[in-house]
Amino acid sequence: MDTGRLGETLLPKRIALPVFCSDPLSSVAYATEEILLVLGLGGLAVLHLAWYAAAGIVVLLVVVVASYRQTCYAYPGGGGAYVVSAENLGRRAALTAASALLIDYVMTVAVSVVSGVAAITSAAPSLDGHAVSLSVFFVVVLAWMNLRGVRESGRWFAAPTYAFIAVVYLMFAVAAVRMAMGTTIRAESADLPVEEVSTYAGIALVLLALRAFASGCTALTGVEAVSNGVPAFAKPKSRNAAMTLAIMGALSATMFFGITVLAMVYEVHVAEDPTELGLAPGTPMPTALAQIGRATFGDWHVLFYALQAVTAGVLILAANTAFNGFPMLASVLGRDRYAPRQLVHRGDRLVYSNGIVLLALAAIALIVAFDAQLTRLIQLYIIGVFVSFTLSQAGMVKHWRRELASPSGTGAADRRTVHRRLAINAFGACLTAVVLVIVLITKFTHGAWLVVIAMPLLYAGMKAVRRHYDTVAAEVAVAPGDRPHTLAENHILVLVASVNAPSLRALSYARTLRPDSLTAVTVAEDPAEAEVLRATWEAHGIDVPLRVLSSPYRSIVQPVLRHVRDAPERTGESVVSVVIPEYVVGHWWERPLHNQIALRLKARLLFVQNVVVIDVPYRLASARELAAERAGTPSP
Amino acid sequence: MDTGRLGETLLPKRIALPVFCSDPLSSVAYATEEILLVLGLGGLAVLHLAWYAAAGIVVLLVVVVASYRQTCYAYPGGGGAYVVSAENLGRRAALTAASALLIDYVMTVAVSVVSGVAAITSAAPSLDGHAVSLSVFFVVVLAWMNLRGVRESGRWFAAPTYAFIAVVYLMFAVAAVRMAMGTTIRAESADLPVEEVSTYAGIALVLLALRAFASGCTALTGVEAVSNGVPAFAKPKSRNAAMTLAIMGALSATMFFGITVLAMVYEVHVAEDPTELGLAPGTPMPTALAQIGRATFGDWHVLFYALQAVTAGVLILAANTAFNGFPMLASVLGRDRYAPRQLVHRGDRLVYSNGIVLLALAAIALIVAFDAQLTRLIQLYIIGVFVSFTLSQAGMVKHWRRELASPSGTGAADRRTVHRRLAINAFGACLTAVVLVIVLITKFTHGAWLVVIAMPLLYAGMKAVRRHYDTVAAEVAVAPGDRPHTLAENHILVLVASVNAPSLRALSYARTLRPDSLTAVTVAEDPAEAEVLRATWEAHGIDVPLRVLSSPYRSIVQPVLRHVRDAPERTGESVVSVVIPEYVVGHWWERPLHNQIALRLKARLLFVQNVVVIDVPYRLASARELAAERAGTPSP
Repeated sequence: MDTGRLGETLLPKRIALPVFCSDPLSSVAYATEEILLVLGLGGLAVLHLAWYAAAGIVVLLVVVVASYRQTCYAYPGGGGAYVVSAENLGRRAALTAASALLIDYVMTVAVSVVSGVAAITSAAPSLDGHAVSLSVFFVVVLAWMNLRGVRESGRWFAAPTYAFIAVVYLMFAVAAVRMAMGTTIRAESADLPVEEVSTYAGIALVLLALRAFASGCTALTGVEAVSNGVPAFAKPKSRNAAMTLAIMGALSATMFFGITVLAMVYEVHVAEDPTELGLAPGTPMPTALAQIGRATFGDWHVLFYALQAVTAGVLILAANTAFNGFPMLASVLGRDRYAPRQLVHRGDRLVYSNGIVLLALAAIALIVAFDAQLTRLIQLYIIGVFVSFTLSQAGMVKHWRRELASPSGTGAADRRTVHRRLAINAFGACLTAVVLVIVLITKFTHGAWLVVIAMPLLYAGMKAVRRHYDTVAAEVAVAPGDRPHTLAENHILVLVASVNAPSLRALSYARTLRPDSLTAVTVAEDPAEAEVLRATWEAHGIDVPLRVLSSPYRSIVQPVLRHVRDAPERTGESVVSVVIPEYVVGHWWERPLHNQIALRLKARLLFVQNVVVIDVPYRLASARELAAERAGTPSP
Repeated sequence: MDTGRLGETLLPKRIALPVFCSDPLSSVAYATEEILLVLGLGGLAVLHLAWYAAAGIVVLLVVVVASYRQTCYAYPGGGGAYVVSAENLGRRAALTAASALLIDYVMTVAVSVVSGVAAITSAAPSLDGHAVSLSVFFVVVLAWMNLRGVRESGRWFAAPTYAFIAVVYLMFAVAAVRMAMGTTIRAESADLPVEEVSTYAGIALVLLALRAFASGCTALTGVEAVSNGVPAFAKPKSRNAAMTLAIMGALSATMFFGITVLAMVYEVHVAEDPTELGLAPGTPMPTALAQIGRATFGDWHVLFYALQAVTAGVLILAANTAFNGFPMLASVLGRDRYAPRQLVHRGDRLVYSNGIVLLALAAIALIVAFDAQLTRLIQLYIIGVFVSFTLSQAGMVKHWRRELASPSGTGAADRRTVHRRLAINAFGACLTAVVLVIVLITKFTHGAWLVVIAMPLLYAGMKAVRRHYDTVAAEVAVAPGDRPHTLAENHILVLVASVNAPSLRALSYARTLRPDSLTAVTVAEDPAEAEVLRATWEAHGIDVPLRVLSSPYRSIVQPVLRHVRDAPERTGESVVSVVIPEYVVGHWWERPLHNQIALRLKARLLFVQNVVVIDVPYRLASARELAAERAGTPSP
């Protein structure tokens, strides 16, 4: 919370890479498979198109990384798609980017966890039927860790991420050496019959290739994290961030391409439905990466299991980055009043918790609804990513053009740099826009329509929040010179259930308010109960009149509500205050045991004009203990 | 809510049967299958034991029904296991019964929905992979309907329940006619190879048979509902309820036995894992009832689909009964202070909602955790049922003995009746106790241990709640003659963020309290902001001093908390009131947009001694509309 302390956590590149790049790096674990799944539909004859798709994705990755490097320089304070769009393209673009990003955070959790679980079940096929429960379990664990405030240090991220990179490159090396020595390595699925479908030709074939390309574009998810996190880098921030992006791009591109090469050489066959490969329905299917790993490492089972373990680890870490990113975006949206204002205060535990729980529930809903099937989930993932890419790059183009237009301060050399940056971002924007169109066309009927519906809904929701705040601001505005109104009288009703310490305290407090009238009110379910209370009241000699309301329907709220509503004292110039004794407890689990009726009464009385409810707290022993504890160790 | 209106809904037997018996009747849809699943482990040689298991279950059903008929006569006000145990066996037995019943409600939802989904996937195998999401979907729909207060009339229940009974008997008739005409009917699974396991002999064989019997006891779940619902029957209540129980028993017994006979004759083979029957892993397996239906109806596919549809319908209705029963039990527990007191007021929407949501979440958690696998869920179901059976019957024995011991009013004929009832209940108690032991022994390692852990936890939880209420009652008790203390002074702080209508209203209200001092307090994140507010304050000429608190860490709660805590006015004889303007909105979705900081501040101030927080409501336009609407159509 303290800005001073934030300074200590500035990250060197070697820590920043795993912290910000576990998401994009981990996506190479499933990108190749998604390409093969689509091409598999066209049969063996079209599988070679995977080369083109993979090459296209590598080019796209290079362009996007180059493009985002410019953002790191332009926005040393952090340049997420929302910020860049808001500053350069206006409200609508910013809200569109925000909608896309919100969906992406949910999808990052769902897709990464499900893919991590697939890595686990590939190594332990007996767990195959439990993908849904395992995935939900991991989401719950991540949410719980984030709720408990388990702060992952950079080291937490570093180990699995670097281990993943190391094992994947080791796999490449082993494969290269074994093949150089003349060994023919084939995947376990190489000999499975692939149905020969020859219906794909002409436009249909092109569309299939494009769809394969679009599926592989999952390799690009998460690239934005670095440009968003520039302020967390060690100085020179922008330079280090740009460098980290470049390293990430190089790693991603080589790993993705390497895995694709091995998949093609080993003849890995995958299908959404095992029957397409002549297998019995329900046969567990290992992931493409698992097949490659098993084939490469052969008898070195330990290395295969290591590969699966680090893959699962890095994917689950990737899911965790969404739990960090989501509250940050919510905070910015709150500041701009597109989301509840309290979200601005990120330091606030409670607010933060709501965000975590919301994100986890949304991800769990998707996982359960899609039966933890990665390929069906991925259809929903890529649109949001490319919407934010395109808007972010387009915003950067605007940014550089404005810089060029500004009359002062840029020399010829600087202008040349800006021109170069403008060109890179413009190319990036065009390319990602084209890919967005491809993704939209090829994925729409495969599930992406859900996102196309969800994004406008989120957009409309955020606009509605902003409109509400604007309306309220106008509504509560006062004319210059307006002063507090003078109210004539204050009549007080004290609600009592029995003569006990909290009731007496409420009466004491009510007296200090020097009311124009003071009455105690009680609700009795039967006359006998009322008589007992009245007798006790008199025995204690309490000099406040007691009014008994009868309740034929065993409700406490209704009789009081009616009594207050009909009170003749409640006029335009006077006010009725209802004083309710409140039990204060020290443990969270004691809370639902008390004050529930008071809370409900209060919720109803809020809507009655010229009525104010006053809870007079009575601290029970457990609350006093908690207060003493807090006083002993003052909270920050 | 009105006791008068409740009278109108008294149910004739023909409606009461479907309302209260959809749960026990529907359990015949899976009871036979559970027996066969267990015996299948022993191979073909032991399958004939199913006859003994089924016969034992029918006998048990007759005894339990006879036993519960006595409860209907003894408790015309409704005799659930908790009430009967509490009145006759004391606190411990009652809490044990309550723990068992709470678990049973959750299990009823989970098991019935999963079984209903199995009926659907048996008819539509392509949905086989979606059992978890379909089950969760149905639980959510049920919860939503109950939350929306969709009151199912008797008719809703009547249609699927009677249709289920009709289709099952029709199936028996068709089977009888076809076999009488010499047709040999065989199930689709009849020719699947059952592994010949010969390891079961001696004690192991007996245990296997007992386990099969214990599994089949699911046919008895839900019998208690009738005795619980006696007050809802048309007069003569007890007689009608007892009669309904007898009809239900006859229907259940014949349907269960008929289904078992057909399963044996058709040689239905089932297994938890398809590979045990030589099928590929993941092959969809229709339920035993679906196999019987398909074999019986042969080419009349319509009838097969009708059977599956009504089976799913009646099972999902059965799940719905738990949503009705759970709040009723919670209400009784609340009255006895073993659960939060507010649960007593069942008419209250909000309280009721919490119960519904809790029940749905617990059922969903189980469904997801057990991957919607019926057989694994059922292991958890039967223990609770037999714990409550045994306690309820034992309580009835005590009840009749007390009646015999009471000196007056029972003639010789009456005494004979009571003796007979005592004998029936005693036999029932012994028999269900023996079955409980069998269930415990044979199911413990198969998942029932979870219930053996959960029940004591629930028991301890309820005791803790009661202990808490008792402690608090002692803590707040006052000595006879105690009166309200006199507090010396009341100092008021009004929290303002800007000069607007809600702030002015809060200041107006604070003035009516005639405080000993009145100060306005504001929190400023930076000095410029503070200056603006101070200038406005002066421009408006508000004659209340304004105190600006600075907030270096962008928190609003902390500076105010510190200011109030350190206020010198807060002494033993004086009190500080913090007045906060509160925005009142008319739509639920507007609520998270306002007052969040005030709520948090209030939560913290509760623990500071001699401080009272007063929210002064300011009704925004939407709230005034809602208030007008409510005034127009007064709530009941």
